[in-house]
Amino acid sequence: MPEFLTLLPPDEARALLLGQLSQPITDSEVVGVPASLGRVLAEDIVAPHPLPDFQRSTVDGYAVRARDTHGASDSLPAYLQLIGEVPMGDSPAFEISAGQCALIHTGGMLPNGTDSVVMLEYIQQTGSDEIEIFRAVAEGENLIHVGEDVAQGQTVLRKGSLIRPAEIGGLMALGIVKVNVVRHVRVGVISTGDEVIDPSQTPRPGQVRDVNSHALAALIEKSGGTAELYGIIPDTFESLQDAAGKALSECDMLIITAGSSASTRDITADVIRSLGEPGVLVHGINTRPGKPTILGVCNEKAVIGLPGNPVSALVNGYLFVVPAIEKLLGALPRTKPHVLARLTVNLPSQAGREDWWPVRLISPSPLGKGQDEPMHAEPIFGKSNLIFTLASADGLLRIHPDATGLSAGEMVEVYLV
Amino acid sequence: MPEFLTLLPPDEARALLLGQLSQPITDSEVVGVPASLGRVLAEDIVAPHPLPDFQRSTVDGYAVRARDTHGASDSLPAYLQLIGEVPMGDSPAFEISAGQCALIHTGGMLPNGTDSVVMLEYIQQTGSDEIEIFRAVAEGENLIHVGEDVAQGQTVLRKGSLIRPAEIGGLMALGIVKVNVVRHVRVGVISTGDEVIDPSQTPRPGQVRDVNSHALAALIEKSGGTAELYGIIPDTFESLQDAAGKALSECDMLIITAGSSASTRDITADVIRSLGEPGVLVHGINTRPGKPTILGVCNEKAVIGLPGNPVSALVNGYLFVVPAIEKLLGALPRTKPHVLARLTVNLPSQAGREDWWPVRLISPSPLGKGQDEPMHAEPIFGKSNLIFTLASADGLLRIHPDATGLSAGEMVEVYLV
Repeated sequence: MPEFLTLLPPDEARALLLGQLSQPITDSEVVGVPASLGRVLAEDIVAPHPLPDFQRSTVDGYAVRARDTHGASDSLPAYLQLIGEVPMGDSPAFEISAGQCALIHTGGMLPNGTDSVVMLEYIQQTGSDEIEIFRAVAEGENLIHVGEDVAQGQTVLRKGSLIRPAEIGGLMALGIVKVNVVRHVRVGVISTGDEVIDPSQTPRPGQVRDVNSHALAALIEKSGGTAELYGIIPDTFESLQDAAGKALSECDMLIITAGSSASTRDITADVIRSLGEPGVLVHGINTRPGKPTILGVCNEKAVIGLPGNPVSALVNGYLFVVPAIEKLLGALPRTKPHVLARLTVNLPSQAGREDWWPVRLISPSPLGKGQDEPMHAEPIFGKSNLIFTLASADGLLRIHPDATGLSAGEMVEVYLV
Repeated sequence: MPEFLTLLPPDEARALLLGQLSQPITDSEVVGVPASLGRVLAEDIVAPHPLPDFQRSTVDGYAVRARDTHGASDSLPAYLQLIGEVPMGDSPAFEISAGQCALIHTGGMLPNGTDSVVMLEYIQQTGSDEIEIFRAVAEGENLIHVGEDVAQGQTVLRKGSLIRPAEIGGLMALGIVKVNVVRHVRVGVISTGDEVIDPSQTPRPGQVRDVNSHALAALIEKSGGTAELYGIIPDTFESLQDAAGKALSECDMLIITAGSSASTRDITADVIRSLGEPGVLVHGINTRPGKPTILGVCNEKAVIGLPGNPVSALVNGYLFVVPAIEKLLGALPRTKPHVLARLTVNLPSQAGREDWWPVRLISPSPLGKGQDEPMHAEPIFGKSNLIFTLASADGLLRIHPDATGLSAGEMVEVYLV
């Protein structure tokens, strides 16, 4: 395995892969805003009008001219003439002159002539058309100005934004009920290995079920892609090249999960070399699990060879497949959900290698108590082939390449999966 | 507003609500495992067979009896008779006796008579049927035992588990291709407010579009529910009671987003009281935004009145609606994605009140560098009615009730949204 003589650090390997990828996909589709949750915007969103587009009160009270309240206090209240009530959802039919005011509710539109609102708590009604005010207000107090949320023509959401509930709210506030989103990234998935069978079948001695196609398909779907499964391909160069060529022509990106043995890994590398230029970029990454991972680009499309063992395949799916999908989507960089947690035991690691350990997160105290005490991270020990070490994990602990092991009590990064 | 005299802390308010809710919903549906991503398991999963169900090699090498290698070294190698190669995906057709060995690939099945594997690196082939071994192995070395991942009959996934890519992999490994998942929680959503119009309409002066129904529907969908929108209901007790009664009979849970004014909030509380016992549990929560939030339970179903302003509605949706959905799903407790970050500025807060600020997370250094330096949290200032303060946020910073403001440089909890 001469290619393993130069193992690249994962960050460098990822940068090499992403740097060689073509620009983001430009195809988009128009969807109704409610259906756009979790998609990536394919256009900048510009506010067609200011928000709010009228001066709104933020409290229940009385709309006034601030100067009419100057000097007002408990002992020397200001007296104003009450000339009406602002209807909700409509513009007031009256104007306010000096010495006058109007009852207004939260969200109501300020009548012409007023510039502030006195809260209900600071007035007393002294007659059917008169109130006393016990506290002065400043101009602009207790209201939202026109355009205070967004100005007309302002770019409110950038191309590449992930659409979350708040974005849906913002679009609706502007009356935008359809948006252009980037189409899903199509990711082809091929499994190889003469010992691998479909999960619906009963294995004979020596056979194992295809875990990787389906676990990776779920990861792809979760990350903004659609997975196209090309099945389990026999361990020969010709059959893998046929299947990979077809998949690559139909998809934006291809993942091949190798069988377990070294020979099938070598076939994968040879096939990637045969599919287009520049071919294999990285063969061997200084990480555990995942050392045999292959990163390639063929005619501007990413082709990623993942190790056959399921934990390794999935962890390296997080490290390389997800960022490649995000690059193709043109998604703006976002913080990956992770927590800083306190490690419960000593963990060995080899200097220069980046390790990823499945961990359980344990709350040191009941929910909501204690801002200061972080979660505890408890590693789940097991060989890297054991899928249920990952299924019982809350996240993956990262040991940086420059660390030579971690000590119990240290703060560590745990990426939630 | 007498109910505001006793504001409950949010954690207490939430505990009160969840404590009054009926048991999780018991209806489940059978779905194919690939379609189960993001759903909650309605059954324990028990391993129908051990995993792996045969002794597998974890390396490329030679299957041996460990005792035949004892004492082997560079200067004094052990010599073994090579009697065959283990085929991938099949059981070996031969047995190994003392002094014999067989070529085996990673993932291959150990032949009868062997108990360990010598790595390829430590042998040399000296004839067509003879190898030299330069290093001793211990019994059990370089293999996975039967049942080392999971034992037959072991509970591998618990009822209430969220199905992620790793769970899908684990299920497939066991040949389980369909699972029982809890059906989606049906959450009715009613908007009120005479000033509120459908987002597809053009507001007249004084009107605003219905942001809350759609932003909350997205939050519900993201959290394992399906939202049933009952539209915008006029601000009268009778019409709201009619709509709420119908919605509650058709759904597992109901959210009413009040109009902005105090009177519509009071109507909401009165309607909740009229819908069933015990009615309103909490009216007024010591949090910002969200003070006017109402938590109720009517005949074992949660009814939550959220403030009309969109940021307040969404933040309190995270605080109360999502946990109620998770309770109904019977979902096992999981860490909410949050990061510890360094606050960039001083933030005021009132002792006793829990504040939630929209913040941007800024990486102090390029991705992947520096385990030690946390993200920076930069608050987005703006009145709580401004939906785009939330749309441009990466998360919500929590200021605990016992804090009287935070100082620049402090470490804070930011929940990713």
